[in-house]
Parts: sequence; C-alpha cells; structure tokens
Amino acid sequence: MAGEAGKARTVLLATEKAFAADAVSKIEAVTSAAGYKLVRLENYKSKDDLLKAVADADAMIIRSDKVDQAVLDKAAKLKIVVRAGAGYDNIDLKATEGKGVVSMNTPGQNANAVAELVFGMMITSARNNYDGTSGFELVNRSIAFYGFGAVARAVHKLAQGFGMKSFAYDPYIPAEKIAEMGATPVATVAGLFEHQYVSLHVPLTAETKASINKELLMKMPKGGTLINTARCEVVHEADMVEVFKARQDFCYLCDVAPDDKAAKEAMTAAVGDKFGKRLIFTAKKMGAQTLEANDNCGVAAANQIVAFFEKGETRFALKA
Amino acid sequence: MAGEAGKARTVLLATEKAFAADAVSKIEAVTSAAGYKLVRLENYKSKDDLLKAVADADAMIIRSDKVDQAVLDKAAKLKIVVRAGAGYDNIDLKATEGKGVVSMNTPGQNANAVAELVFGMMITSARNNYDGTSGFELVNRSIAFYGFGAVARAVHKLAQGFGMKSFAYDPYIPAEKIAEMGATPVATVAGLFEHQYVSLHVPLTAETKASINKELLMKMPKGGTLINTARCEVVHEADMVEVFKARQDFCYLCDVAPDDKAAKEAMTAAVGDKFGKRLIFTAKKMGAQTLEANDNCGVAAANQIVAFFEKGETRFALKA
Repeated sequence: MAGEAGKARTVLLATEKAFAADAVSKIEAVTSAAGYKLVRLENYKSKDDLLKAVADADAMIIRSDKVDQAVLDKAAKLKIVVRAGAGYDNIDLKATEGKGVVSMNTPGQNANAVAELVFGMMITSARNNYDGTSGFELVNRSIAFYGFGAVARAVHKLAQGFGMKSFAYDPYIPAEKIAEMGATPVATVAGLFEHQYVSLHVPLTAETKASINKELLMKMPKGGTLINTARCEVVHEADMVEVFKARQDFCYLCDVAPDDKAAKEAMTAAVGDKFGKRLIFTAKKMGAQTLEANDNCGVAAANQIVAFFEKGETRFALKA
Repeated sequence: MAGEAGKARTVLLATEKAFAADAVSKIEAVTSAAGYKLVRLENYKSKDDLLKAVADADAMIIRSDKVDQAVLDKAAKLKIVVRAGAGYDNIDLKATEGKGVVSMNTPGQNANAVAELVFGMMITSARNNYDGTSGFELVNRSIAFYGFGAVARAVHKLAQGFGMKSFAYDPYIPAEKIAEMGATPVATVAGLFEHQYVSLHVPLTAETKASINKELLMKMPKGGTLINTARCEVVHEADMVEVFKARQDFCYLCDVAPDDKAAKEAMTAAVGDKFGKRLIFTAKKMGAQTLEANDNCGVAAANQIVAFFEKGETRFALKA
C-alpha cells in the first residue's frame, strides 16, 4: 500500500518491446536505490509469460503492454501499474480500480522532444525547406504561447537559446509566474496573435475546439506562423484554408495533418508548391517519438512507483 | 584619408538591388551619428546613374554592384569602398589599389544565419524528415568543431541552448581560449571524430582538400553525422560514398551538393530513399542567405567606413 515505506518490493518491468539497455540501467538504478528488486520480462512472446511473471510483483512498469482482468487475476500482490508514456488505452482502468490497484501514466516526459521538433519545423519553414533561396533567421523574433505548461516551457527554453522573445497566455498560470519564467504575460488569447509565431499548447475542450479562427489568424503580423503540436481540432480548418488563400505570407506548422482528409487536402491545395515551406504536416503524430522521451518515461515510471510506496504520492493516478 | 577624424563625409549607398528599408535606416543611423551624409542610389537602372552619383562620394557601400576602372575614374574623392557581404569579385582590386582606394568586405556577418541552418538540418535528420517515425533528441549529444571561428562559435552558442556538449580543434586558437568559450579543446583532427556530430569550419586549402576521409569517418560513434557548411571539397567524396555503403547509421548534412555531378549522384544513390534523412543537400549554397545576414552586412559596412575615417582602422582591407 502507498505510504508503507521501507519495505522490500518487487517491480516487474514487463515490456513486450524492450527499453534500450541504457534506459533499463537507469530504471534499475532508481529501484535499487529504494531497495527494490527489478524483475525484467522483456521481449516476451506470449501472454502466458506475462501471467506467470506478474504473480510476485508489487508494482509493474509497462509500455504498450495490456493490463486487463486476466493479468490482474494472477497479480495477487500488485498495488500499482505505471504506463511509461502518455497514452493509457492499454490499461483496463475499471479492472484495476475494481482490484484496488493504482494506475498511472507519466505525462510531461516528452516536452523536450516536442520542443526540438518545433524548432526543426520553424527553421525548415524559415529557410524555405532548404531550396537554396534566401530566408530569415529566428533571432530577435517573437513567439507567443497559448498555454504555458511543460511543453510550452521547453519550447520557450530553446527559444531563449535562439535569442527570441517569448510571450504567453495561460488561464491557469498567474501573470507573475509567467514573467518569472522569462516570458512576457499576455492578457488575452487575441493578444497572442500580435506576434509572428503563435504556438498552441492547449488541450482539446469544448472551449478550445475550432477556436483558432480566421479573425485571430488575420491579425498576425507579416510572416505570421501558427505552430500546432497540440491537437488539430483546436484550429478552425475551413477558416485556415481561407487564410492561406488571403495571405501569401501565412505559415502553418503542424505535428500531424487533420484526421479530416478533406480538410488536409484543402489546406495542401491552398499552398500548392509551397508545401514543406508555408505548410508542414508530419506524416504521423511524432512530437513525443524519440529515444530520449521513451527513456525519460521509463525512469519517471520507476520514480513514481518509489514515491507511491515511500511517500504515498498519487499525483499521476488515473481514473476510470 | 584614414585617421582624419571629425570631417564631414559623403557616403554613397549604391545598391542595384536595394537593402530592406529597415536595414537602410540602421545604416543611416550609423552614418548620421558620425556626422556623415548618406546618399542613396537604390535600384538604379543604368551604369550612368552610378557614374554620376559617385562623383561626390568619399565612401561607397555596395552589394553586388561592380566597381571597376570606369567607376573609379569618376570618383575623384573616393577613399574607401565596402562590399556589404563576403564575396568581392565585383570589385576590381587592382584598379582600387592603383587609385589608392581602400576596399573591404564584411566577413563574419552571416554566422548566425549559418548556425540556424545547421540546426534546421540536424533536427530534420534526427527526426527522419518528419516522416512520423521515432527519432532522437539533440539534448546531451556531442558536437565537435573543426575550426572555431565566428560561424563555429555561433553554432556552439545554439548547441548550448540545446543542452549539447561542444568540443573543438583549431590550429590557430589556443586550447585555453577554446575552453574559455565553453567548448572542450581537442588535440587533433582525428580526436574530433570520436563525437557524434562533427561540424566543418575550415577554409579550402591544400592541407584541408579531401582531408575528411574514410579513416576519419569510420571512427565516428553510432549515428555519426558530418555537417558541412564550409566547402564540399574538404570532404573526400569517393570515400564518403564508401562510408555511406559501409555504415547504415552515418549521416551527411551539407550546405550545397558537390559541383562534381558524379559525386553528387553517387552519394544520393548510396542512401536511396533515406535522402532528406541520412543525406541532406541544400539546393544552392544558402548558409548566409537571410534577411538578417544581409542587414548585418550593411550595418557592418557603415561601421567599417566610420572606423576607417575616424580611427584609421583597416582590419578588413582586401588585397589585389
């Protein structure tokens, strides 16, 4: 149970697709330091292997591995399962709750991975996809963040390295706190669109859905560029097509094309041969897809397990 | 004459292709502060316009504009001509020398432009040209500089923002000086190739020509990546093709393909469908091609003219 500190524990690392050796070493360093035993079930081929291995586990670290009723039935001692990653569709949360097992994911471990992707797309666009023509530099330009959570702050940190000026609006973070982190607070969403770059870092909600519309985008200064590593649906896609047609200078850099195929095609058609310059879509959502982000998630999972047992921390606990 | 400070001077800004308005304002701010008059001859259509305008000029700022004997014959008062940029083929240096006119270029103004291009190519390669597959991050990785002049130091500065570790070898810069600038000095060229990224910042000389060979490139650790924003010819091109075939992990990011068409085709064929990932060639040499680099050159030209007249500075004077 959480809060029962100082006991010996067995942590099962059950990864059908194993972590890199280096990541496993880092995970083991965390569990060893806590006096826990790490049992590795890596690259296993059948569910039976998992069902056997889970019998002695007090805790489990998984990746895309399925934790369902069958697994839980064999996991007599299990108290916590942590998905090393953001998505957790592979955990049957009703089943874990039913058995009193705490489930967690490891959010925020992909911040730098996304931030580097943002700069790759920004430079690729600013330098005309390396076509040999004259472009511009990022130094001294302005970037405004809609939402100033972990990912936005990682982008902001890189932006400082490039000598850019940062601005941010976040309804849940006080202006003073934003200023402390080195960005200029902006009072309204509309205020963000006075800057050349606007980077979206908001969840998809009823309020944000299709909220980035023509009115906002037409306000942007020369070279106005929207960066979207959040969710496509935050953008009003029909408006976006109109903006592309109305403004030859406008750019949209997006980690993954809209699911809506018609919207994707309309945007692509609107920019013509400027695709890869004015409009960049990644081929699949890939902001979080790096070796390092995966490693970070593994280590975070180990740390969350130790904090759960030793201090009763349940900050990242998931609800069914 | 150089060193005759405090006199009124006329500076002719002769630009067949005008600077951006913002750059002209900055140039004029420099000349005004020195008490000089800036005369603008922009977007002129015939050489006659230039021949007329040059009569009263004590100094000239040019871009790709030709300064030949005909221009000099009309330039009775001219003491100095500065090419706002690096290349200076458009100045007849024998003619200027013959008339006692000092000629200069403005080297080093493109450093940040090149540095940003380097990071664009690095991220594009590390993230598989945005094809949606998992890549890696630059954070904590090592970059080693062959030559540690202005451009290399600008790349180093951005590398620090990305949390990378820098190493450098430069036969003309003492190790202590390199360490002071935040990079770890490396004793030999070969020592550079122990690091994942090696970035070339050397001129093309008898010694450097084709010096980056198979022996060096095969030493590179996993993911070894050569970055070349210097000159293609520094690389041994036949060796490079062999290295591409021998190492599936090796990458080459180069600001412009080799002039040698066969070499370009052999490299491109060796990487197959990994072009844009393992191998990036810009379509034309474009490291210095940004709005900002051009502006910087104009301002540097104005500053060099003022320093020449007021302090006798001739640091960037060119020889025939």
